[in-house]
Amino acid sequence: MDLWKISLNEYNNYDNKKYETLFTLANGYRGIRGALEFSSKGNRGNYIAGIFDKSQSQVTEIVNLQDPLGFNIYIEDEKVDMDECVLDNFNRELDMQSGVLNTRFIATTKKGKSIDIRCERFVSRNKINRWASKYELTPLNFNGKVFIENYIDGSVTNGAWDVMNKNKHFKVKSIFDSNPGIALTIETNDNNMKSLELTTLMGENERGNIFKTRRYSEFGETVSEVYETYMTEGKTATIFKYGISLSDKDMKCDLFTAGTSELKDFIKDGYGAELEEHKKIWRKIWDEIDIKISGDEKAQLGIRFNLFQLAASAYDGDTKVSIAAKALHGEGYKGHIFWDTEVFMLPFFIYTRPKVAKALLMYRYNTLKGARENAAITGYKGARFAWEAADEGLEVTPKWGFDYDGNAVRIWTGDEEYHINSDIAFGIVEYYRATNDKEFLVNYGIEILLDTAKFWQSRVEYSKAEDRYEISSVIGPDEFHEHVDNNVFTNYLAKWNIEKALFFKDWLKTEDNVVYKVLCSKLGLNDEDFKLWDIMAEKMYIPKSEDGMIIEQFQGYFDLADIKITQYDENEMPVWPDFEGNKLGETQLIKQADVAQLMIMLPEEFTDEVKKSNYEYYEKRTMHKSSLSPSMYSILGLAVGDRQNAYKYFMKAIFTDLEDNQGNTDFGLHAAASGGSWQSAIFGFVGLRVNKEGILNINPWLPEQWEDLSFNINWKGSRVSISILKDKIKVDSTGKITLNIYDKKYLIDKEKQLVIAR
Amino acid sequence: MDLWKISLNEYNNYDNKKYETLFTLANGYRGIRGALEFSSKGNRGNYIAGIFDKSQSQVTEIVNLQDPLGFNIYIEDEKVDMDECVLDNFNRELDMQSGVLNTRFIATTKKGKSIDIRCERFVSRNKINRWASKYELTPLNFNGKVFIENYIDGSVTNGAWDVMNKNKHFKVKSIFDSNPGIALTIETNDNNMKSLELTTLMGENERGNIFKTRRYSEFGETVSEVYETYMTEGKTATIFKYGISLSDKDMKCDLFTAGTSELKDFIKDGYGAELEEHKKIWRKIWDEIDIKISGDEKAQLGIRFNLFQLAASAYDGDTKVSIAAKALHGEGYKGHIFWDTEVFMLPFFIYTRPKVAKALLMYRYNTLKGARENAAITGYKGARFAWEAADEGLEVTPKWGFDYDGNAVRIWTGDEEYHINSDIAFGIVEYYRATNDKEFLVNYGIEILLDTAKFWQSRVEYSKAEDRYEISSVIGPDEFHEHVDNNVFTNYLAKWNIEKALFFKDWLKTEDNVVYKVLCSKLGLNDEDFKLWDIMAEKMYIPKSEDGMIIEQFQGYFDLADIKITQYDENEMPVWPDFEGNKLGETQLIKQADVAQLMIMLPEEFTDEVKKSNYEYYEKRTMHKSSLSPSMYSILGLAVGDRQNAYKYFMKAIFTDLEDNQGNTDFGLHAAASGGSWQSAIFGFVGLRVNKEGILNINPWLPEQWEDLSFNINWKGSRVSISILKDKIKVDSTGKITLNIYDKKYLIDKEKQLVIAR
Repeated sequence: MDLWKISLNEYNNYDNKKYETLFTLANGYRGIRGALEFSSKGNRGNYIAGIFDKSQSQVTEIVNLQDPLGFNIYIEDEKVDMDECVLDNFNRELDMQSGVLNTRFIATTKKGKSIDIRCERFVSRNKINRWASKYELTPLNFNGKVFIENYIDGSVTNGAWDVMNKNKHFKVKSIFDSNPGIALTIETNDNNMKSLELTTLMGENERGNIFKTRRYSEFGETVSEVYETYMTEGKTATIFKYGISLSDKDMKCDLFTAGTSELKDFIKDGYGAELEEHKKIWRKIWDEIDIKISGDEKAQLGIRFNLFQLAASAYDGDTKVSIAAKALHGEGYKGHIFWDTEVFMLPFFIYTRPKVAKALLMYRYNTLKGARENAAITGYKGARFAWEAADEGLEVTPKWGFDYDGNAVRIWTGDEEYHINSDIAFGIVEYYRATNDKEFLVNYGIEILLDTAKFWQSRVEYSKAEDRYEISSVIGPDEFHEHVDNNVFTNYLAKWNIEKALFFKDWLKTEDNVVYKVLCSKLGLNDEDFKLWDIMAEKMYIPKSEDGMIIEQFQGYFDLADIKITQYDENEMPVWPDFEGNKLGETQLIKQADVAQLMIMLPEEFTDEVKKSNYEYYEKRTMHKSSLSPSMYSILGLAVGDRQNAYKYFMKAIFTDLEDNQGNTDFGLHAAASGGSWQSAIFGFVGLRVNKEGILNINPWLPEQWEDLSFNINWKGSRVSISILKDKIKVDSTGKITLNIYDKKYLIDKEKQLVIAR
Repeated sequence: MDLWKISLNEYNNYDNKKYETLFTLANGYRGIRGALEFSSKGNRGNYIAGIFDKSQSQVTEIVNLQDPLGFNIYIEDEKVDMDECVLDNFNRELDMQSGVLNTRFIATTKKGKSIDIRCERFVSRNKINRWASKYELTPLNFNGKVFIENYIDGSVTNGAWDVMNKNKHFKVKSIFDSNPGIALTIETNDNNMKSLELTTLMGENERGNIFKTRRYSEFGETVSEVYETYMTEGKTATIFKYGISLSDKDMKCDLFTAGTSELKDFIKDGYGAELEEHKKIWRKIWDEIDIKISGDEKAQLGIRFNLFQLAASAYDGDTKVSIAAKALHGEGYKGHIFWDTEVFMLPFFIYTRPKVAKALLMYRYNTLKGARENAAITGYKGARFAWEAADEGLEVTPKWGFDYDGNAVRIWTGDEEYHINSDIAFGIVEYYRATNDKEFLVNYGIEILLDTAKFWQSRVEYSKAEDRYEISSVIGPDEFHEHVDNNVFTNYLAKWNIEKALFFKDWLKTEDNVVYKVLCSKLGLNDEDFKLWDIMAEKMYIPKSEDGMIIEQFQGYFDLADIKITQYDENEMPVWPDFEGNKLGETQLIKQADVAQLMIMLPEEFTDEVKKSNYEYYEKRTMHKSSLSPSMYSILGLAVGDRQNAYKYFMKAIFTDLEDNQGNTDFGLHAAASGGSWQSAIFGFVGLRVNKEGILNINPWLPEQWEDLSFNINWKGSRVSISILKDKIKVDSTGKITLNIYDKKYLIDKEKQLVIAR
């Protein structure tokens, strides 16, 4: 097994959508789903992060842009169509090490002509506006005319699979014979945002150019160039397709002029040179992100898939976009950004690619205006980050959706899932703690901490009877229960958010008094507020069991019908217990980690004993109906000694998409599960956490078959390499750091390897 | 076997294009190819006779208009796609008697849901702008939500199968939510001709309307309405799709206003009522056109297919359109009009539907302006009808095409195939002879006869040496030989054309002297011309063998390599003989009937002996590489006693498309073969011809297995019904007529049946 390659050896067009997701190539700027040029089955997708449009949709959504992949081969009058030809030697392979997608097959047409087709595609990480394909075509049993069509399809819609909800978010603005190549510009309906796709072909064999004539055509919303060539049995022709994608998000000048010049530069640089640069960058990224697992090939391949896709979904070049729940891999959740980013994905970036982590947090800073508007229009103060956010930070959660039976149901998450605010605050503190990036904290982070705290100030309710602060009618991470009061996850993190705001404003006061004063003035805060925050934090209500050992997920939860999970399916996932007579929300069954989630995020706030009793209580009641859940339980399980389930949950998390275990990989990557996979490995098996003093701890435990778990992290500017072996642990660091291993403190110095026995 | 139905019981999407042609529904005004709504494979076609456009094409072509057939069924989230579902009980049936296309199958989706689908479609012969479908849908193993999508696709191109030549001939002009229904208007590129498609759905079961919600959408070049409904296992829902098609060819008012009002009227009248009217008209048409053959089911079904499609391809409501070589059934020959119409199809209409025949001839009259322009720009006088004509009568034959090996070759037919002029004159004389329509002759027909004769006057060349008139460098019906001199078919018919012009101008002079004078003045003719015409006709060179028995197809033909056909393939068609060392044009092999064609068109001009020797000579050298050829040889064969081959050629002709024996039925009907089929039955087996005195003759011979051959014809306003039985012949007539049977004269009076023994 090549532990860098995701392979597919059987073609079944019913699975095309799933593999389009798995084989998506992205570079943070944009994503192109792994569509097959030679099949019309599937759902092609071409997305540029940050290009959203609402027009006829219920809410704004990421725009599925014009499709530049169009490529047809006609052997005389027969089009090579995978769904009509006989296929042999079919293979697709995502080479994660180099970020290249390979497709190979032999197609035999109805008339019996066989052609060997090998395609290579990459979306450049070197120059983000570049992408390219290479086609190696070898006639196996014929000589003759072959027509190669290159086209850009502007007839694309969003939600093409859903006839009641599909929408077209743009108009084709202009079509050009661009010399070189063909160009198609679109303009989004609402904001008139433009995007250009520009592509051309260069065909050659050992004697140079193979193209004889070119025909340029426009067909309504499609632009096409067709090249005639003559192919000879057994001789391979190589065709390079060069692509340039631009949007006026990137540049305000004329897209067409800029694009044409970029395409010429790309051709001048050459396909091979660009591919080399692209691979070089992926090598560098892998050096930062890889987790090596020896002794468990499945786990090794699986974790790499998640690291690859996560790293592909973000870059540090744009501070106005973030990673959607389905990343750049599909239209599920409409390209919206959830807490998934800060709570599930961000830790990966903080510890491996901190510049990207900063860019992701900057997206929140840059959408504060929308967050403030969300607060204002719902009657609150400060910043209320949207449960689902898009380009402006405004709340874009749909108000209506469908339940499992297809009945329309009101979606309350956008109204009630307030914890997103503290989740973002959490991301900021985590980022600062690991990077020591004061510049970010002073200029951006603290403003968010203060303004989210200010929101909580306006949101909490004082109960005179109990002399405590409460937060009623919310939804916690467990979305089976709506309109609940005093969800602990929400209350605890609100309290924590306020505390961190207070802590860092004190810090800022001395660190940079001018910024402090400007912020107080800008946000309308003074010592009266801070005094009140202190009280609020102190008196925040946290429901618990009578003995204090089990946190009550929300007020009244323990009074619900106590239905427990007793059976597991063939995938070791919970089977719905019988809860006849009760609605789901009337039981203690929960969708996903909620109290457990809190304990993972703030491990230092709970004793091991409390963690264990809560883990045991809630694990039996968690249905894992969110891909966010298994990885979290693996982490908490490891913290409390449940090693058996930890591995199961880890594997579940890393194979969320590869095994399509939520059944909806068609619609995009489960990016939070990818982030959770990293956390499960590093926070779970390695046991990496930062204690109250800010010291890094590791506390590794590896499954029996794992012989070595190696990875790198960034810690306050140092690059720390850790290998957990059967009998020892090796640590290297590029800078002086303190590290607790199994609760024992070690000082590690630059270029002096620490080796300790296990 | 139902002798009214063309059936298909196996689904293979590779054959979709062929069956789209065979199952085309047309009403003269327009044709809709028999596409399957539930498959994306094939080449949908929607044509309105007379809507042509050139724009990027080599020559103007009939426009494949926006497609109104769009209809999808979604069972929850699964689209019913014939190419993805498992199909059972598949059956398609063209009911020729009523002009209705039925499709039926049971589709089972990937998720195992089975639905029984029965579709009925007709293109109304009652109101030509109406067409409709009925869908009966029965869930076989599920209850649940079903979404029905009705859409009009404006992304259509011509030549979609041909990547180097496909073109889009229109722009989508406007899209409306038209209440009722959806509407999409297009405008052709060159002439800004508009066409509107307007459709809507009405769904019902036994309790009335079944639709719950409707969604209207526009997607670029497509407009869609989707209805949500709930279906129950075993219960049939019936959905009617109403369609209105208009063009500004029909009306100069606002298409959208007119269309909406027409659609409302259609819904008011109801699907059933319109279908009844449509069937009533088809019953009437069949009463005029049917040929009943007892004792030979294959021949019966085959001949009916040709009669049906020919009758479907024309109507008497438009004098500015004619029947294309591929009728309204496909884009082959670009929708152009050839001699096929006058020489092959027109006789059918003259004898069965004379009003339609008149409309077809009026198309030539109405395009005289173009014909005069053709003459002028090639240096001639009078009217030169185009070898290939479209909307304006200008020559639109492509200048370049491809040979069998795909090499570009210059097409000379538009330059040299002059005989089209006499072919049209021939049609006029035939029409007049059978109908006695003096009004047509006086006001339109003679003008054509004179102006084509005037063309010949300018075209013939006088040879002083031989004291004869010659026509050099032409192509005759046999297109294997180009640039030939004195092709007899051309020369003979030119001579005949001049003679008929002279004859009818004399007739006109007494019949209507004013028209005569006006015509002379308009066409610039005087007695000097007429005198010259007389000489030209008399001295026209007709090459013959030395004994005068065999006409030499063209001057020098006998000197060519005399390669004869010696072998026949499994379909009894000629196998290419070896002509190594010669090019095809250097041999005596010919493409199709040429001298034979002349003898069929002008049977009274040649003795039986001459016919026989020419038949025998040329039959051995004719490759039948045109679908126009076999039927003609069957007629001449029967005239000279070759009964064995006659039946073979007849069957070949009637199965041209049903058995796709030219291999290109995909691209449309071989309408000339359909016309030839009628001629083969009536002019061949019945031996119907008009002698020099203008008396109708029949001289029947039937193949052994034929027990009865019955048909109706119109003869000078009388309807004559003839039955040829084994032992007798029965003739009825609605008016007094004279009829020669086996060269014996009979007078037949109104409502007195003539019965004679055979």
